[in-house]
Amino acid sequence: MNVDSAGLDVLSRQECLDLLSSTPIGRIVFTDRALPAVQPVTFCLDGENGEDIVIRTGVGSKLAAATRHTVVAFEVDDFDPDTRTGWSVTAVGRARAVCDPAEIARLSRLPLTAWAPGDRNHFIVVRAEQLSGRRIRH
Amino acid sequence: MNVDSAGLDVLSRQECLDLLSSTPIGRIVFTDRALPAVQPVTFCLDGENGEDIVIRTGVGSKLAAATRHTVVAFEVDDFDPDTRTGWSVTAVGRARAVCDPAEIARLSRLPLTAWAPGDRNHFIVVRAEQLSGRRIRH
Repeated sequence: MNVDSAGLDVLSRQECLDLLSSTPIGRIVFTDRALPAVQPVTFCLDGENGEDIVIRTGVGSKLAAATRHTVVAFEVDDFDPDTRTGWSVTAVGRARAVCDPAEIARLSRLPLTAWAPGDRNHFIVVRAEQLSGRRIRH
Repeated sequence: MNVDSAGLDVLSRQECLDLLSSTPIGRIVFTDRALPAVQPVTFCLDGENGEDIVIRTGVGSKLAAATRHTVVAFEVDDFDPDTRTGWSVTAVGRARAVCDPAEIARLSRLPLTAWAPGDRNHFIVVRAEQLSGRRIRH
């Protein structure tokens, strides 16, 4: 197992994808009016190698507006305060608003439900171009 | 209770501070070499109104280098996948590297322990200038 300069275990790309796929909620990190912004979202993985992060939001949402054609980060983690152990995975990549009706129809059939009420018919896809993960063991 | 355009309950500033103070781990959102970055950290609140987020890291860490004199976001959340309920709180404000030895000595006595191994003698303080929170009820 590789260890980074902070003493944390470095996760492999496959471990990162496995942890991403087992987590229902992540946090998308973007810029909103020149300020750093972060928003929890439900998501699922898609694409040939399972490296596309699919997020469902409202058409007119701040998130939809702020993530068009930008590079975003996407983070999932799980920590146990009792044992002070846990892991985090961060993906960085271009966000793309899905405009093609056939692709929207296909993504609508993914097992992806927004927890918030209201219509959520806008899909954002983030390609996980960079993927990094760390684990803290006891 | 106020509800936002997405149908989520809007938390008051005091509710946001109460939730921040009850959470051991948050995520600091910053820019690293022109890319969005996010890192989970332990933290505690400090300052006259409990609005200063104190983070402990290594002197030479990427986080220390990337957050000098910049505006960052800081996020905490808690979600329950079974009930699809939860909350999130985000603070936005200037990050400050603590350089004064007397302040470093005082912050060293705060109940703040990094979970990762290694020396963590660099303190970053984020003033929660903007504070916003949302709750999803069932």
